[in-house]
Order: sequence, then structure tokens, then C-alpha cells
Amino acid sequence: MTRPAPITSLQNSHVKRLVRLRTRREREQEGVILIEGAREITRAAASGVPLSTLFTCPELFSPEAAQVAPTLSALPELELSRAAFEKVSGRENPDGLLALAPTPRAALPEPGPSAVTVVLHGLEKPGNVGAILRTADAAGADAVIVLGRGADPFGPNVIRASQGSVFTLPVAVMDEQDAQDWLAAHAFTTVACTPDAPRTYWDAPLTGRVALLLGTEHEGLPAHWRATDHSVSIPMNAARGADSLNVATAAALVLFECARQRRAAVSA
Amino acid sequence: MTRPAPITSLQNSHVKRLVRLRTRREREQEGVILIEGAREITRAAASGVPLSTLFTCPELFSPEAAQVAPTLSALPELELSRAAFEKVSGRENPDGLLALAPTPRAALPEPGPSAVTVVLHGLEKPGNVGAILRTADAAGADAVIVLGRGADPFGPNVIRASQGSVFTLPVAVMDEQDAQDWLAAHAFTTVACTPDAPRTYWDAPLTGRVALLLGTEHEGLPAHWRATDHSVSIPMNAARGADSLNVATAAALVLFECARQRRAAVSA
Repeated sequence: MTRPAPITSLQNSHVKRLVRLRTRREREQEGVILIEGAREITRAAASGVPLSTLFTCPELFSPEAAQVAPTLSALPELELSRAAFEKVSGRENPDGLLALAPTPRAALPEPGPSAVTVVLHGLEKPGNVGAILRTADAAGADAVIVLGRGADPFGPNVIRASQGSVFTLPVAVMDEQDAQDWLAAHAFTTVACTPDAPRTYWDAPLTGRVALLLGTEHEGLPAHWRATDHSVSIPMNAARGADSLNVATAAALVLFECARQRRAAVSA
Repeated sequence: MTRPAPITSLQNSHVKRLVRLRTRREREQEGVILIEGAREITRAAASGVPLSTLFTCPELFSPEAAQVAPTLSALPELELSRAAFEKVSGRENPDGLLALAPTPRAALPEPGPSAVTVVLHGLEKPGNVGAILRTADAAGADAVIVLGRGADPFGPNVIRASQGSVFTLPVAVMDEQDAQDWLAAHAFTTVACTPDAPRTYWDAPLTGRVALLLGTEHEGLPAHWRATDHSVSIPMNAARGADSLNVATAAALVLFECARQRRAAVSA
């Protein structure tokens, strides 16, 4: 069987489409996402994401990409020249693998009695959203709800920063009212993380069904998301002028405090 | 008094020097660091860093930079044109303020009975080192020791990611033997953070003088730094394939666990 020649023209329609898909609007119109990199593609495939097309550039393969590519041979594959792949890649050092898939539509799982759901409001930096997804996955959270028009949780930079956790953890984009209704219907204890809360995150009861609400570092949460069951803060060393933590760091601390209290509750 | 005209030539010797100083080797040879941005310069000045020269571009001033600039009027100031400032800046959106200062030489503080010292081995990503400095500052750590040739803790990207905490927290660059000697001489309990330790970070005693040792995500700590008083891991949700945390996230969790245990020890 003859292998088709690689696509070399930067004016090729596939190349132009992939470049367009780097914008959120185009991805939303087509209902597809871009998954770049061997690690991310592997985790997406392992999580059951139905990859539709694979774009490869063997000349750029990292050792990991060279291992992963043959395992994806069932997919329609288009080979690109180095110049064409570098044009469509969002990375400084692409590893030669890029896949398309339909945008995941996570149904929120029926929450168990100790479910932890993270609710993100207005976070704009893809690096922070991705880091929170990675940490929520590691901490054993059940789902992440993304409200409104912050960073696209399925954008290439979030996928990358999440190291693929965006595919293993249910991630739902919802409007605010739907999210509030869902949390109320399932009797979640809502916990707002805000720097000015008098109670520390160590002192709030974080067992049972818990929804952790996080806003941006600058603006925090809007008023209607602050009327929660608990507000918690992370005590900081004000003496030296430290006045803030990165929002992904704050999320990690509260998520693992949930895990610690759950373990303590089980062993008590 | 006539204000000197701004420097417009990209061949100007100041401009060329600032560009050279973006490399670590040049900074080390001159013994100076670059501090860019209103927030970072403010924290450096407030921490007693003896700024030597201020470079400004009023056309690029952010609102914060416009407020900060007049408070630094005692410094020798050179104004740059927009093109010149953009050439010397390391940022995508410079705020028009850049300062030079001698490289800080932190003497490690005489540790108190509950001192927490963070020891970083071989961390190469400036973003991670900076994030750890910011978090260590917020968590009330006493000092950070940077071993060997990882990221330059006084490089522009670390300064930025630390949000200036590199100036408020004592940060010492040491060779490994000196660091081990110093920790031993002050009877620190050494705690290695490694993913394979059977004991969780919640279960190890983290009160008293504690040195937290952190290595890279891929290679971890070398063998001679693993022979510590305790090894601790962060329990993760292996069920879903989550196998790692970002090193700065891991550092945050253990640092704030130190804070939690210290508070518990005081109130017990």
C-alpha cells in the first residue's frame, strides 16, 4: 500500500483549518477540540475520547511520540511536513502528534456521599485552569464545573497544563443558574474560598458532599456566589507582606484538606 | 532643570547592556540582577534591596507603574523610548519600569525553634521556582536554599513568578555540602518529598526545625539527599491514572501542612 505524500503546502486546506481551530470561536462552531502531544493524546484515548483524525510529523517525533503513534494506527492519519506541522502547532517544541476530537460534553456524575466538586468562576488564565484540573484529578475530586466565559477548559493551553486530566475528570461548562440548581438538588455543602473569611480551611467541616467555589485572584467571587454554607481562607504570613496565593495553589490546598478530613473521618 | 532626552537608539550602550543582562552568565559576571515591573520593584525596595538604576518608559506605564515611579525619584533614572524599552524588556506587555540592583547575597537567618527551610535540588523551570518562593513566603517559611545549577533564583522569570517574594524571603544559593553542613549544624529534621514514600505528609511530624527537600518532577532527589529523617508522599487518586503533581503544588501542600501542625501544636 502506498503511503500518501506528506502535506507540505501551508495553503493546504487541512493546514488552514487547523490554524483556524486555534481560536475558541472556530472550535465552538465546529464542535471540535485540538489535542496536541503524545501524553495528552494518550490520556484522551485512554479516557474514551473518540479521536477523529491524527496529524503526524515523524521528523518531529519525540521518543514518546514515536512509541505512541503506532498505537493510534486505526485512526485516519495525515502526515505533515515539518514546516506545516510547526505552523499548526501551538508549542515551541512540538512532538509531532496532533489529534482532533469532538468537544467532550461531560454529564455530571451522580454524586456519591463524599463527592467533591470544584466550581470555577471567571478564571481566565489557561495555566491556572489546567493546573486546577490536574490537581483536582490527583486529589480525587469528582467533577469540575466551569462557569461562564473564562478560559475555554478544552482549549489547547488548558489541555496542556492539565496534562490530560481534562479528559479523565468530568468537566462541565454550565451557566450559573444551572450550576446552582444542580448543587442545591444534590444537597452539596458549598464552600467559598475567599481571602477575607475569618475561618481557616482547616477549621471548616469539609466532609460529605462539598462544592469548592473559586474565583479570580483579583476579583474573587461575585456576591451571589458568596452566600454559601461556609467561607474559608488560607492563613498567610502577613508579617512579611505576603498577601496572596496563586488561585491554583489555593485550590490545591483546599482540595487536599478535603482528602485529609475524609481520611480522618474514615479512620475515626 | 532640563530632563535629558529619552534613549531611542537600539545601539545605545545602556540598551545593549540590558539585553546582555538577560543571560544568567552576564548577570553573574556583573553581579547584578534585573527587576522588571512595578510590583516587583516595589517589593524589592520595601525589602531593602539597594536599587542602583531605574529605567523608565512613561508611554508604557501601567496605572500602578505611574504611581510607583515618583516614589523612586531618588534613583538615577534613564528614560527609554518605547522601542528601546520593548527591546530590553522580558515581558510581552511591559509596564515601563525596570531596575538594576546588586545580586542579593542572603545570609541564612539564625533559625528559630520552629524554622521551616525549603531546599530545592535541580529545579530548572523558573515558573516552578518562583511559585515555590511565593508560596513559601505566604506559608511563613524562614528561608529557601537553592542547590546547584537549576534555575537562577534571581533570574527575571523567577522574580516575576515569585511576585517579588524572592526579595522578602531569604534565598541562598549553596553547594550541596555546605547546605548539608548547615542543616546538620542547626539540627534540622530533614524531610524528603518523594512520590514513593509509604508515609503521607499528613502522618509525618513536621513541627520543630524542618527542612523540606524537593527535587524535579522527573528525577526526584538524588540518593544522598534521600537519606533523610523522614520521607513523605502526597496520596493521590491512582484509580483515575493521576500520577503526579506539579512540584510547586507538592511544595505548597507540605509547607501548609507544616503550618497546620505548628498551629495544632500551639493550641494543643
